[in-house]
Amino acid sequence: MRIGILGYGNLGRGVECAVAQNDDMELVGVFTRRAPGSVKTVSGVPVFHADELANMQDQVDVLILCGGSATDLPEQTPEYAKLFNVVDSFDTHAKIPEHFAKVDASAQAAGKTAVISVGWDPGMFSLNRLYANAILRDGNDYTFWGKGVSQGHSDAVRRISGVKNAKQYTIPVDAALASVRACENPQLSTRQKHTRECFVVPEEGADLERIEAQIKNMPNYFADYDTTVHFISEEELLRDHAGIPHGGFVLRTGRTGKDGEHNHVIEYSLKLDSNPEFTACVLAAYARAAYRMNQRGMSGCKTVFDVAPADLSPLSGEEMRAQLL
Amino acid sequence: MRIGILGYGNLGRGVECAVAQNDDMELVGVFTRRAPGSVKTVSGVPVFHADELANMQDQVDVLILCGGSATDLPEQTPEYAKLFNVVDSFDTHAKIPEHFAKVDASAQAAGKTAVISVGWDPGMFSLNRLYANAILRDGNDYTFWGKGVSQGHSDAVRRISGVKNAKQYTIPVDAALASVRACENPQLSTRQKHTRECFVVPEEGADLERIEAQIKNMPNYFADYDTTVHFISEEELLRDHAGIPHGGFVLRTGRTGKDGEHNHVIEYSLKLDSNPEFTACVLAAYARAAYRMNQRGMSGCKTVFDVAPADLSPLSGEEMRAQLL
Repeated sequence: MRIGILGYGNLGRGVECAVAQNDDMELVGVFTRRAPGSVKTVSGVPVFHADELANMQDQVDVLILCGGSATDLPEQTPEYAKLFNVVDSFDTHAKIPEHFAKVDASAQAAGKTAVISVGWDPGMFSLNRLYANAILRDGNDYTFWGKGVSQGHSDAVRRISGVKNAKQYTIPVDAALASVRACENPQLSTRQKHTRECFVVPEEGADLERIEAQIKNMPNYFADYDTTVHFISEEELLRDHAGIPHGGFVLRTGRTGKDGEHNHVIEYSLKLDSNPEFTACVLAAYARAAYRMNQRGMSGCKTVFDVAPADLSPLSGEEMRAQLL
Repeated sequence: MRIGILGYGNLGRGVECAVAQNDDMELVGVFTRRAPGSVKTVSGVPVFHADELANMQDQVDVLILCGGSATDLPEQTPEYAKLFNVVDSFDTHAKIPEHFAKVDASAQAAGKTAVISVGWDPGMFSLNRLYANAILRDGNDYTFWGKGVSQGHSDAVRRISGVKNAKQYTIPVDAALASVRACENPQLSTRQKHTRECFVVPEEGADLERIEAQIKNMPNYFADYDTTVHFISEEELLRDHAGIPHGGFVLRTGRTGKDGEHNHVIEYSLKLDSNPEFTACVLAAYARAAYRMNQRGMSGCKTVFDVAPADLSPLSGEEMRAQLL
């Protein structure tokens, strides 16, 4: 199948690498709203202006949308679902119903297949919540994130005056994880689930105490957490904190038996060196599914819940049953 | 939907309890080849002779087959797929292709939907192998089982002369798990992955040294493992080893990026107090899917790979997207 990438940041570059790992996919090109000549791709694949897409409907089977959830995807996914099968990683949980409705209207009308909110959360974590809830009907759900870099929280720290650069890590609390795994079914406050750790490069002469207090008391972002602030040099930040790792844990504990006498723990976890590259791999797998579902006449907006696992795999049914079942 | 249970051992009792946890399911009855009067159900649901099933096609939407994989299911699943939508937990990996073909022929001809090999391995573990392989294309797979009771190995020990009773635990080796999680991509021998621990009740005056040697040298079952043998009293066995716990780990580690410079770990694990009750919960969820898929005209033999996750959940699409995505 022939793949196009719209948007060429960390995620777009990740998709470029992911497509190269899949023999049944061919990358047609990267599409950008910037001047194509200013964009250099990792693999040397051609770069086109996004406006070219309207003329390339017969050359692209699935368009993978690699823009951001704040402003790009709410416009792009409904728009491009009129022309292509599309996959996006829309992750503003509260706005998914609205996004779904808009994309569904476009895709249905055009007979295209659009899979939204693909990645790891939403995405693989969502799937694990669904499977675990369908199996253990009487139980409790827990999702922990990290250890990993939160872009939003890093940005929030950078906006403080006197801060030159910063990186923020979200870290799950070990004791909380242990309690969940022991089937103690704890009710956990925000503070009990995660801690936050900030590595901050201050501007010369900045008031470090004021910066630290401003971080720790920032509403929504930090006030409800135990936060540690480390002041370091720009050199240290680039040397020790250049990566974009992330991950997390989805757990469900539940009871079965006549009187709920047996406990069970289902746990799914990810430990990712590169958050965008992993998300990109999930997008590539769902691009395969979007293409196949469209070929079977299943059009409209879908989520990971609607996609049969077999549609993600390059293997045939016989191979899957022999090798993976 | 109206559920029937065929076969009433540990698994059948588990399904009885699982159905009671699902508001959209009603248990019509337990079907057995024994004298119905001799079977007492946990919930008091009626017991019928298996022969009655032929007359009850209009009263059962999905028949959950709770027999064994050795002799029951190879006959029962193809037979009953002619009359009902069915779900089974057939777990003889090597014979799945043959079982699939037979069940598919019956179910296709009758317009019924049959989901085979449902449980946790095959089942949830298989699904996790498939998802992880579809995402991380360049990587390695690992499955560890335990800590848990292996029925087959316990039976093998019980067959040794001088053994009155026995229970065998399969235990994953912590160092092997740690190496996998550290992305060291180890090549692990049988001995390096699992150890085996046996709790044996000897008959009075039995030669303990001979029994221990016979266990440890038993080909296929124990010879390739480091095995520990504990001799205990029948009282201790009943007090400390009455349960049927199990579980395990499915991991895939993989590389992404231009030169495979980033490592990722996907891990799924189960810790189960009751192996049959958990398997029963998975069967109940897939009974829901079998019913829905049949209503949409999707007949024939399916595995967990062919079932869209949404079909397992009692929630509507809107509810799922709002609560779980």
